Amino acid sequence: MTPSFSLESCVRAALEEDLGRLGDITSTALIPADTRAAAHIIAREAGTLAGMDAAMTAFRLLDADAQVTANAADGASLHAGDKILSVKSNARALLAAERAALNFLSHLSGIATETAEAVAAVRVAGGTARICCTRKTTPGLRVLEKQAVMRGGGLPHRFGLDDAMLIKDNHLALYAKRGGIAAALKAAHASAAALNSGGSIAIIVEVDDLTQLQEALEAGAKHILLDNMDTATLAEAVRLTASRALLEASGGITTERLAEVARTGVDFISLGRLTHSAPALDFSLEMEAATPPLAAHR
Amino acid sequence: MTPSFSLESCVRAALEEDLGRLGDITSTALIPADTRAAAHIIAREAGTLAGMDAAMTAFRLLDADAQVTANAADGASLHAGDKILSVKSNARALLAAERAALNFLSHLSGIATETAEAVAAVRVAGGTARICCTRKTTPGLRVLEKQAVMRGGGLPHRFGLDDAMLIKDNHLALYAKRGGIAAALKAAHASAAALNSGGSIAIIVEVDDLTQLQEALEAGAKHILLDNMDTATLAEAVRLTASRALLEASGGITTERLAEVARTGVDFISLGRLTHSAPALDFSLEMEAATPPLAAHR
Amino acid sequence: MTPSFSLESCVRAALEEDLGRLGDITSTALIPADTRAAAHIIAREAGTLAGMDAAMTAFRLLDADAQVTANAADGASLHAGDKILSVKSNARALLAAERAALNFLSHLSGIATETAEAVAAVRVAGGTARICCTRKTTPGLRVLEKQAVMRGGGLPHRFGLDDAMLIKDNHLALYAKRGGIAAALKAAHASAAALNSGGSIAIIVEVDDLTQLQEALEAGAKHILLDNMDTATLAEAVRLTASRALLEASGGITTERLAEVARTGVDFISLGRLTHSAPALDFSLEMEAATPPLAAHR
Amino acid sequence: MTPSFSLESCVRAALEEDLGRLGDITSTALIPADTRAAAHIIAREAGTLAGMDAAMTAFRLLDADAQVTANAADGASLHAGDKILSVKSNARALLAAERAALNFLSHLSGIATETAEAVAAVRVAGGTARICCTRKTTPGLRVLEKQAVMRGGGLPHRFGLDDAMLIKDNHLALYAKRGGIAAALKAAHASAAALNSGGSIAIIVEVDDLTQLQEALEAGAKHILLDNMDTATLAEAVRLTASRALLEASGGITTERLAEVARTGVDFISLGRLTHSAPALDFSLEMEAATPPLAAHR
Amino acid sequence: MTPSFSLESCVRAALEEDLGRLGDITSTALIPADTRAAAHIIAREAGTLAGMDAAMTAFRLLDADAQVTANAADGASLHAGDKILSVKSNARALLAAERAALNFLSHLSGIATETAEAVAAVRVAGGTARICCTRKTTPGLRVLEKQAVMRGGGLPHRFGLDDAMLIKDNHLALYAKRGGIAAALKAAHASAAALNSGGSIAIIVEVDDLTQLQEALEAGAKHILLDNMDTATLAEAVRLTASRALLEASGGITTERLAEVARTGVDFISLGRLTHSAPALDFSLEMEAATPPLAAHR
Amino acid sequence: MTPSFSLESCVRAALEEDLGRLGDITSTALIPADTRAAAHIIAREAGTLAGMDAAMTAFRLLDADAQVTANAADGASLHAGDKILSVKSNARALLAAERAALNFLSHLSGIATETAEAVAAVRVAGGTARICCTRKTTPGLRVLEKQAVMRGGGLPHRFGLDDAMLIKDNHLALYAKRGGIAAALKAAHASAAALNSGGSIAIIVEVDDLTQLQEALEAGAKHILLDNMDTATLAEAVRLTASRALLEASGGITTERLAEVARTGVDFISLGRLTHSAPALDFSLEMEAATPPLAAHR
Repeated sequence: MTPSFSLESCVRAALEEDLGRLGDITSTALIPADTRAAAHIIAREAGTLAGMDAAMTAFRLLDADAQVTANAADGASLHAGDKILSVKSNARALLAAERAALNFLSHLSGIATETAEAVAAVRVAGGTARICCTRKTTPGLRVLEKQAVMRGGGLPHRFGLDDAMLIKDNHLALYAKRGGIAAALKAAHASAAALNSGGSIAIIVEVDDLTQLQEALEAGAKHILLDNMDTATLAEAVRLTASRALLEASGGITTERLAEVARTGVDFISLGRLTHSAPALDFSLEMEAATPPLAAHR
Repeated sequence: MTPSFSLESCVRAALEEDLGRLGDITSTALIPADTRAAAHIIAREAGTLAGMDAAMTAFRLLDADAQVTANAADGASLHAGDKILSVKSNARALLAAERAALNFLSHLSGIATETAEAVAAVRVAGGTARICCTRKTTPGLRVLEKQAVMRGGGLPHRFGLDDAMLIKDNHLALYAKRGGIAAALKAAHASAAALNSGGSIAIIVEVDDLTQLQEALEAGAKHILLDNMDTATLAEAVRLTASRALLEASGGITTERLAEVARTGVDFISLGRLTHSAPALDFSLEMEAATPPLAAHR
Repeated sequence: MTPSFSLESCVRAALEEDLGRLGDITSTALIPADTRAAAHIIAREAGTLAGMDAAMTAFRLLDADAQVTANAADGASLHAGDKILSVKSNARALLAAERAALNFLSHLSGIATETAEAVAAVRVAGGTARICCTRKTTPGLRVLEKQAVMRGGGLPHRFGLDDAMLIKDNHLALYAKRGGIAAALKAAHASAAALNSGGSIAIIVEVDDLTQLQEALEAGAKHILLDNMDTATLAEAVRLTASRALLEASGGITTERLAEVARTGVDFISLGRLTHSAPALDFSLEMEAATPPLAAHR
Repeated sequence: MTPSFSLESCVRAALEEDLGRLGDITSTALIPADTRAAAHIIAREAGTLAGMDAAMTAFRLLDADAQVTANAADGASLHAGDKILSVKSNARALLAAERAALNFLSHLSGIATETAEAVAAVRVAGGTARICCTRKTTPGLRVLEKQAVMRGGGLPHRFGLDDAMLIKDNHLALYAKRGGIAAALKAAHASAAALNSGGSIAIIVEVDDLTQLQEALEAGAKHILLDNMDTATLAEAVRLTASRALLEASGGITTERLAEVARTGVDFISLGRLTHSAPALDFSLEMEAATPPLAAHR
Repeated sequence: MTPSFSLESCVRAALEEDLGRLGDITSTALIPADTRAAAHIIAREAGTLAGMDAAMTAFRLLDADAQVTANAADGASLHAGDKILSVKSNARALLAAERAALNFLSHLSGIATETAEAVAAVRVAGGTARICCTRKTTPGLRVLEKQAVMRGGGLPHRFGLDDAMLIKDNHLALYAKRGGIAAALKAAHASAAALNSGGSIAIIVEVDDLTQLQEALEAGAKHILLDNMDTATLAEAVRLTASRALLEASGGITTERLAEVARTGVDFISLGRLTHSAPALDFSLEMEAATPPLAAHR
Repeated sequence: MTPSFSLESCVRAALEEDLGRLGDITSTALIPADTRAAAHIIAREAGTLAGMDAAMTAFRLLDADAQVTANAADGASLHAGDKILSVKSNARALLAAERAALNFLSHLSGIATETAEAVAAVRVAGGTARICCTRKTTPGLRVLEKQAVMRGGGLPHRFGLDDAMLIKDNHLALYAKRGGIAAALKAAHASAAALNSGGSIAIIVEVDDLTQLQEALEAGAKHILLDNMDTATLAEAVRLTASRALLEASGGITTERLAEVARTGVDFISLGRLTHSAPALDFSLEMEAATPPLAAHR
């Protein structure tokens, strides 16, 4: 399938906000309309690649005849200096697409890189926990960011409010005098059953302490989110649960704590910062020295 | 003017990607349809506020009758624990809008906070340089991110390729044997003159070293971007220029270098990281204890 | 949550295609602009209701001040003559929205009714199979039609190509000499694992005969679609499977065969005709006798 | 003219609702990205073809290089087994477009087939009445469905509220004490005259009984819709009218009654069920045995 | 029906192009956010009013609580100084909507005025010809401009390529050796018959001289467009036709020639300039002296 | 850059409004589907060309394989009879795109021509004033119309409310007792400073008489709009200002007054009529005599 099909409107929007009313007035002033150019995109630091489809789509949208070649695939480990993409195109189109292409690559590779580092930290610590992201994503980029997390070896977790249930404190408050976690879980199962035809919609219960954990386990919860617990409590939660449910550690898990949390034996570690705070990975576009000679500017 | 007019499509897209095909299946399962709720959004760390209009719009789009009150304005300095926004609304709508509202606030306040810190660092260093952001923004959020930079005391710089000219190495390469910077600048001025009716479109020349700077100054450049120079070179550039042009330091200016760069006397310091790498500022939504009693779930 | 949020663009499109360039030229010619009217929508035959949100949204989009009252909820059993919805509105708006509102109700209630009848037939036959629909839906109405199936007591099955895996003959052909069903299933599990965080993405294997069924069972398939089998073969498949996997009968299951298929003991019966061939349920809009007296036409 | 121009947004929407957030996760898991495939679409039952442009557009939108060949044209009479369309394309794209293409063909050919059968029934009965559809169409598909009716030999009737006037009981109620049908018709003519430049906008009067028919004839109505009349009354209406107006029988005309209604001599028979209740016509996509050998899955 | 329903996207686009990225930066700088204001729109010259719905929608889109009152209706004859619209609104919103509202009014009233003058000129000349516009409209404004022509007493003619047939020289060239006008007309009638259910789609034949006119009349044409004929030829065409067809004079009919063309007895005079060259009618917005006192600017 | 990127949605909208529900029913009736045709667009009167990109895009959107050749560029001086554009295409597509292509060319070239005439008039009068347009543009066509003004040698002035400040009487009224023009200008400068990074946002002060002019000059205004002044007053304003500010004459400047206003020495003359009242320039499409022979119509 043309990878750009579902990306196209997102890339188009990025180009439109950059082109504004009049397009690239600098290149229009300085570069003859029919100049051709060749360029590479170079990684300027090590990391994990994501966003190639978006970058390639940006060049193609502004010049349908652009030749765009991927030299690396999403998920690849990059070294500083790697040429990841080559493009031959109309020169004005190439420069007009440059920033949008780089912004997608930098943002999404930043997320993939942050994820890959977390995944590696768990592995080094000897843990088996899977790294997940959350719904704390940049508005408008949910799917692209979750895919970038997968490129880095992480799990996407919920894509939205509609593909898994997460019973949180605000929901449980409504069941305080009406049966607690067990009643909420029963209602959730009844509702999920009407949506399922063989697979299963995850029903996750968020708990704040071990008392709630005990209540959730007794209610038969199979996936429990341990919210904002310190490492000792997480370890105790794993012991108490004794594999009766999947456990997800969430909240306040800094890079420093990652190894110790991984060693508690939880199944998932979810990190909002993968998508809301990962710094960009640096890329640049370099025009080839051998640019075709330009006719005098008309 | 209704602040949500131009924001609306952006916030709507954020809600749609979170609601997916079926909406909030957890709340649908657990909360009766006509439950009302009240909640606050709380800042969980200190910083500078941005994104209030987007957050308020999120709640209103899902419940046209929601009462949404701002307790702080964009640009405000926040302390951990500040209640910045109150909302009374249908409970399902409130929870369905929660994540989109928080994602806008966290992302944009993160940018405003990073900007405010850079602005403060310059002031502390005794510099007069203005902090600017770049076009290295998150795809789809250009205007909102630049406004967040302004909330933090920074300047927005170019909004797109169409509102100022920036003559870069790729452009200058085409003029290497045809008159160099002077010829490029002349062409840029001619083109800009056709767009101007009184104000002036900024024409910025990017230079890599002092030789190019000298050439730009002799060509009459009034705004020169000093790309990736070390601090000593920046200082020498300021001396050489002797106020004949505005000078903008750009590239590789870490937090650590900010004070020393500010002290060189450059006019602008542009920082890509304000928009591409600022970590999110933490906010949470808290339901009020005094939620109206719920009728039995139908 | 405002039920109309995600429906709105779909209802708006229905209104726009009916209003065309000039709107309702009959009412414009015959009804003074400020006439008010009241009307009911009446079920003209028995069935199961679906589509109320869409119908209500149609009236509200053309008159923001319309008072629209639901007298029955989606999923309700209707008798001929039931008044399901009341509306007071500007008269021109009411008549302009009438056909769009009725078209949504008729189409979606037709689907809910067909589903409810299939569900009842299984129950009467003493079966426990769940009735499912398929992806054979009307272009543009996938979610609304699947929700209508749920209103009738059926299951929605896959909402799209992205929320479950269905390994069909075209996929298996590629694995014919490379490990067959077992290899395909293994590849599917590997890919699904990268998407899952606790719940499980259904992986369904489609088989044409008992040999393939045996191969799928040995490969560990947990959900098997039995394609176009006669009733005896379905029964044998249930016996062979011995509860090791969920079994879904699909293809060629007419109303006449439904009871006997249900009695084979399969877990799911999927019926394309619920969404592609259900006849509409008949509704009409009736203006109240007591329409407010009209001023002379200006 | 590129037939896909006006179809494109409709087909794109159908693909988007099927691809969802992640696209075809089964094919992504099981089929190497650059596999090529060839396939045919086969009619599995006899009928009348419609929807070819939409089906072809679906394949092209997901693979701009797809070779799509029509072996039959809209309006053709099909036999079970006819290969109507051939496609060579990227394999993932082909399978991702399959369901959308088949859904358009099945739905629209179902309508064309139902229409052709009604047209044939009238001809067999020796009638000259033209078969028409109504505005009881599926939301979002008005034009495509009316075109399918034309493919089956029927007439499209009003495309919307804006291209003909239909004076119904709700309009006439407003003229009860102000001149009745004659006054309404006069107002309609006055309004239509302001829209017409040579052709004529149809002004149709709906009547419930012979008294109203008489009133409409005396008022000079040229096109009268006879609503829900039994066959004897229809025949009497034809006699009374004596060719002074076109007569359209509408409402409650089952397949069984079609011949007798045709023999009354009415000019038009309009059938809502052509568009709201026609069962789908069955098509399937079959991959060619000679699929190019696949490289090992990367 | 809410008049703004179909207008809304058009008015929204006009506001968006005026607001750009940052909205009204002058009012943001100078007017406190919660200032209220009242204003009138005044006609500054005599003419015929059109565009009121669009103007009112502009104010409402930027302030949902704006009170907007129409003091005159589309089609009204205006005198210089007439207050046609009053608005009370948030002051920033009012000024931000001002230009879009005035642009709609000026453009559409210019068209209505030009039309009304042509209609009057025909009447003064004692002619009975109806004034029509053409498809020479401003891109994006077809329907609004044709409605403005109707407000001025003219006829809209074809709204598009789909609602009437116009057989022009380019079509006739294809029939030169295959039966000429008669063959083309026959093909047109056959095709139109498949679209018609009672009314009639206009089939217009364009002729360049009296020989072609004769051919068209003999072929039974009922509506003939006389292209670019001088007045004497038009008069002869009327005589020759002897009421066998409607005659439409088109092409090169200046204001000076209008009276003499009207007196030839043609049925329609179509004027492209009504929509492509009508000068704007002048309106201005005036703030009330009694603006509510402003709080100090925050 | 593909010139059609930002134009495409605008041209698409123009085609859609012309094609309506059924497309070009005349050509569908009369021209076989696979007929090829060649045609030219001819200028029928002298003027200045604009709108070529839009016209070319129209032909390409309806036939992706159309060969479209520009024989003249925007800004060219045209003589009657000049062939400006050639197209070879599917014949139905060509005729379906014809009107949209011509409407863009006629409208935009009309504006360019009107502008070029005003520019020439100033030059002939010996003036140095630059001709500007205003924001009085046709809704939806702001950017295209301003570009047409530039093609004619004029300046675009503000593209919207967001790219320059214009302090008008309505703003000044709020500062009447709070510091007058000086205070308003100070507030404007403070706000503009937060937006600027090197260039300058124009801040224009509108004055009605010489007293206000004096006040504006004393407040340091650098660009002053002289609203609706007679020629003598304009001349006095120029004398008084003595080059301390740019002066823009605006309002009531008819073609007749243009020379005398130019001779006053003002810097800019802004003319609303360039965009709101320029008559269309006449173009026509002519099919080539040598159209390829047509197969019999299928």
